[in-house]
Amino acid sequence: MPTTELDTLAVNTIRGLCMDAVQQAESGHPGTPMGIAPVAYTLWQKFLRFDPQDPIWPNRDRFVLSEGHASTLLWSLLHLTGVRAVDPDYEVLGRQSVTLDDLKTFRQLDSRCPGHPEYRWTSGVETTTGPLGQGVATSVGMAMAGRWLAARYNRDDFRVFDFDVYALAGDGCMMEGIASEAASLAGHQQLSNLCWIYDSNRITIEGHTDITFTEDVAARFLAYGWNVTTVADANDLDAVARAFHTFKAETERPTLIVVHSHIGYGSPVEDSPKAHGSPLGEDGVRTAKRFFGLPEDEQFYVPAGVRDWFEQGIGARGAGLRTAWENFFTSYRASYPELADEIERIQRRKLPDGWEAALPDFPADPKGLATRDSSGKVLNSLAQRLPWLMGGSADLAPSTKTLLEFEGAGSFQPGSPAGRNLHLGVREHASAAVSNGMALVKVRPYWSGFLIFSDYAKAAIRLSALMEIPVVHIFTHDSIGVGEDGPTHQPVEQLAGLRAMPGLLVFRPADAGEVVETWRVVAGLRHEPAALVLSRQNLPTLDRSRFAGAAGVARGAYVLADAPSGEPDVILLATGSEVHLALSAREELAAADGIGARVVSMPCWELFDRQPQEYRDEVLPPAVTARVGIEQASTFGWDRYVGSGGAVVGMHTYGASAPLKQLLHHFGFTPERVAQRARELVGARQREAGA
Amino acid sequence: MPTTELDTLAVNTIRGLCMDAVQQAESGHPGTPMGIAPVAYTLWQKFLRFDPQDPIWPNRDRFVLSEGHASTLLWSLLHLTGVRAVDPDYEVLGRQSVTLDDLKTFRQLDSRCPGHPEYRWTSGVETTTGPLGQGVATSVGMAMAGRWLAARYNRDDFRVFDFDVYALAGDGCMMEGIASEAASLAGHQQLSNLCWIYDSNRITIEGHTDITFTEDVAARFLAYGWNVTTVADANDLDAVARAFHTFKAETERPTLIVVHSHIGYGSPVEDSPKAHGSPLGEDGVRTAKRFFGLPEDEQFYVPAGVRDWFEQGIGARGAGLRTAWENFFTSYRASYPELADEIERIQRRKLPDGWEAALPDFPADPKGLATRDSSGKVLNSLAQRLPWLMGGSADLAPSTKTLLEFEGAGSFQPGSPAGRNLHLGVREHASAAVSNGMALVKVRPYWSGFLIFSDYAKAAIRLSALMEIPVVHIFTHDSIGVGEDGPTHQPVEQLAGLRAMPGLLVFRPADAGEVVETWRVVAGLRHEPAALVLSRQNLPTLDRSRFAGAAGVARGAYVLADAPSGEPDVILLATGSEVHLALSAREELAAADGIGARVVSMPCWELFDRQPQEYRDEVLPPAVTARVGIEQASTFGWDRYVGSGGAVVGMHTYGASAPLKQLLHHFGFTPERVAQRARELVGARQREAGA
Repeated sequence: MPTTELDTLAVNTIRGLCMDAVQQAESGHPGTPMGIAPVAYTLWQKFLRFDPQDPIWPNRDRFVLSEGHASTLLWSLLHLTGVRAVDPDYEVLGRQSVTLDDLKTFRQLDSRCPGHPEYRWTSGVETTTGPLGQGVATSVGMAMAGRWLAARYNRDDFRVFDFDVYALAGDGCMMEGIASEAASLAGHQQLSNLCWIYDSNRITIEGHTDITFTEDVAARFLAYGWNVTTVADANDLDAVARAFHTFKAETERPTLIVVHSHIGYGSPVEDSPKAHGSPLGEDGVRTAKRFFGLPEDEQFYVPAGVRDWFEQGIGARGAGLRTAWENFFTSYRASYPELADEIERIQRRKLPDGWEAALPDFPADPKGLATRDSSGKVLNSLAQRLPWLMGGSADLAPSTKTLLEFEGAGSFQPGSPAGRNLHLGVREHASAAVSNGMALVKVRPYWSGFLIFSDYAKAAIRLSALMEIPVVHIFTHDSIGVGEDGPTHQPVEQLAGLRAMPGLLVFRPADAGEVVETWRVVAGLRHEPAALVLSRQNLPTLDRSRFAGAAGVARGAYVLADAPSGEPDVILLATGSEVHLALSAREELAAADGIGARVVSMPCWELFDRQPQEYRDEVLPPAVTARVGIEQASTFGWDRYVGSGGAVVGMHTYGASAPLKQLLHHFGFTPERVAQRARELVGARQREAGA
Repeated sequence: MPTTELDTLAVNTIRGLCMDAVQQAESGHPGTPMGIAPVAYTLWQKFLRFDPQDPIWPNRDRFVLSEGHASTLLWSLLHLTGVRAVDPDYEVLGRQSVTLDDLKTFRQLDSRCPGHPEYRWTSGVETTTGPLGQGVATSVGMAMAGRWLAARYNRDDFRVFDFDVYALAGDGCMMEGIASEAASLAGHQQLSNLCWIYDSNRITIEGHTDITFTEDVAARFLAYGWNVTTVADANDLDAVARAFHTFKAETERPTLIVVHSHIGYGSPVEDSPKAHGSPLGEDGVRTAKRFFGLPEDEQFYVPAGVRDWFEQGIGARGAGLRTAWENFFTSYRASYPELADEIERIQRRKLPDGWEAALPDFPADPKGLATRDSSGKVLNSLAQRLPWLMGGSADLAPSTKTLLEFEGAGSFQPGSPAGRNLHLGVREHASAAVSNGMALVKVRPYWSGFLIFSDYAKAAIRLSALMEIPVVHIFTHDSIGVGEDGPTHQPVEQLAGLRAMPGLLVFRPADAGEVVETWRVVAGLRHEPAALVLSRQNLPTLDRSRFAGAAGVARGAYVLADAPSGEPDVILLATGSEVHLALSAREELAAADGIGARVVSMPCWELFDRQPQEYRDEVLPPAVTARVGIEQASTFGWDRYVGSGGAVVGMHTYGASAPLKQLLHHFGFTPERVAQRARELVGARQREAGA
């Protein structure tokens, strides 16, 4: 299909909209869209299997704008192709996702066209991008999920899933370590359904890439095992199309298309860093429009015929593919009703009926087991009832206990694409981003590592919270409980960092019973990620006939053991392993001092903060101001619960290398010390009351 | 120099010590040292320019054990070569750094041989390692600093600095994104003084690297512009030596030596993941000792002649080089007294005399300037008085304002190694680690990025705090003040995450005056890193004749403006841009309600927490419980200062894309709302008092 005048007109229309939107907002990034518009256009118009009338059709190709600052490119495409809006519960609506008015309010409050693509805010956005490297890494997870869905659900006579994943990335993405990790993984996984387009304009904010980025990117990707092809000029639409044909013909490797482009193409600041992050100015816009043959005096100009042209291209192709798919899916449902039911549940993020029956019981046991171990058991049990629960570890599965060990679980590899155990390698950041990508395709992913290494993945964890997708981040070795490995491996401030993230549920269960209840909450999440923070060391499984039931986990915090009178002198608040320490201190206080202590287990602060004030006051009566928080972590954030007069037994350094018992004594995590702090507080209150 | 029996005996002695230490501790990683011992031995004994009698000789070669879990390898080498201890103020002591008794207490509390190498705890450790990828990335900073020192201080007749940097890394390091970023940068910088040794044993915790890591590492490094050579068998000492000669002969590229090794070599679990992280067991140790020809019944066995052999090798070579260096340095001091003085100050982390005179004044100015701008001005001024202050940005210098613009500052490039502006690329994680490496060589580094992207670098920032090295992490665009870029670029929880890190000083100055005082504190730091958190938007420069002086920054928090009576009804606590909001609210409260409000500026919580209780009570009188904290960030952590009855005006979501003014109104950062919260609290206190 040779390039036509309408192709050129459509490309320049996109450029005009991008320039105008940025100029109108007096803020944004015009240069990248102007340079790479021909490539995005060609992909959408001639290759992308995407129906604007149903932007959540499960087998659509995914397009990821990894260089998210070029958001106007996406807004223009969503507008011109007439993509429809989708409501939060996955119903396609009649209205358009992006109207011309939305484009005109680019970067204004509540516009559907914010500064960067925001998932769930504007339909047609497959993932939130902007932080560089995240989009490409996320695309790897989408491609992995696509391959897994195909392996599980396709039958000889039905190709339910065969979508491709495209990601458009710039020099910045290529420099980020997360992209390197993800590319290495994608090469290993031979993801031939994955295509990255490297928009190589050789300009970054500080100047030409010559000043810091002179590696041979194509050679690097060949080393990862990718298929690499090059387009010498982004404006050569035929060459661009040939490159996409090369991708489509490739069956064993992911493809990188290196496209040489010119930032700010056609404007006075072409090939300059000035084209990156500032509007072109009115004169600049006029000059560029003249260059492109667009009317200089029109803003947000869409020439006659351009919308029709898109309808004849991506519109007709997408609608044809999607309706054909829906027709055969009716037959598929008849032949494979159970598989079809799974697919439909996946799309709506619904769980299989009766999934809760899979949750095991753990009998009381003073020796107990590590919460990483009980979590591993629950995970294995749950995964058998929830076939699209899958995941892996950043090379720590034997330690994090996340391996699915039941028959048929298998390892996800090029030769076994239905496997559910992912080997993600020592690549924490990509592990989290890949999990995001899988969740965006709506399978239920988890990944695991040591809590200390959540630091490596923090930017991707944040995105799961910002996007409101139910990724399960599993972190074990959750405190100085790691013992001998010492300060480099002992998390101290990680809990605070995770708890400060809006929208992330952080669970630190105290025993196997709380682990079960944690997974009960987590499995049911549809729009929230969770972090599970688990112990390396054994913890007793509490006898729930003596203590309150673990169902309190769902409320975030609960009274595990009360003062005998029901009117506590002091409250001991703790999470995870320290709950047992609190219970010991409670006994000591009762026996030695006659002090009535209540123990509150607080596995999830975020859920507790959402409870009605009444419940919160019931658990933490305002009148009881003698409170001791106990956690093997930075004390940062505890004041909220212990109050001004409270005390926290926590960590103020990075720990030390020694056997756990030595460390507990050294850092004061002993019943004696906790009881002593409680005694001091109770004494002080009594003196105040007496005074 | 052909391989001798003593070479073999020395290698096997190291292996024996490593096995015994792990077995004694019943914890640790025996497999890696056993596989790679011949390479570490060859490097130390035959190449490393290092004098065990003076392990802080400035021109020593640096050795980084990036696979830090193999710490016993380093402990054994430090012991056998007789490296001496160094005190915290850089005095070499008479005692040994690692005695045989220290090795015997490996991984016990207070042992000089902790689980992973800890900088400043055991002399001879050049950097703390364990978190994978950090060591290699840090080594790039060391090599860059080495090249810069050479360019600044060497003269035709004196080669004061020409040290090399070696880093030993495993498969895990090679998979981490931070290593990719650093390798790309090192290739660009043509660091021919840098040698990475890739200990390729193809085994990770989950199994053979075949399951996830099948890229061609050598080809990848060639793509980065490295020199790559391979050693087929780690046990072939001659081949290993040839590889190091290849490195020494290379003058334009960093070198990667790929060494094929066998984890757990000689033990029953050779080539198995079981050799990685568990002791071999007594039988395993015996079997291995038999294989190596070591006496099976001896633990911690050092054969006669081995210590002498090291003394004749590394000892004699190192002492010769170091004493020759000291002799010529005496001449150098005579010829170049000022340069010699600088070198000596650098070694002791001392500042030039009179450096404070460089700090500028900023006159009161209601329009003011962004704190990123005032910080840039201070930095430029300070850098002219402090020649070894240098740094750069992760491709954001025009935005973070960290470019040194005075004449002669220059860009650090292969052709201009005396340049002080680093172009670090879109590689935040490596930027922080490279800065760590530079600080370990004792120049004074800074690097900059947007606060949101501190997430990418968190693991390396943590290491600067754990190592107690004075890196300056500069983060601008510190809040929803970034405006239109929206949630992906608006930091919310980052401040809390940084504040929770022990040992990191986090500064968020309110105006140019506080910026100056921040830099005054930061410049003087010798053993602490700092994070500077700066605004994108303009902030008024306060008239200090009307308000308290900015010197209060040094105490972390201070009373900026008090209630007229000196007895406040309410305290408004704020940092950064919100201090101005607090001042406006104070005026409104006084004018409209007659409420006396005190405004406390809290630029550095950590410094405030270190003040005597008396000062803290003076700033925040316990009796005044009506307190409002104001910060455009997660409220997490504020309860410590506002107390149980206080309120916080902060962020509870990830922000939104819109112009700043819209955002301030939308999220409630207005004087009216702050005043309203204050009124409510004052009213509640009055009702309580009345009741």
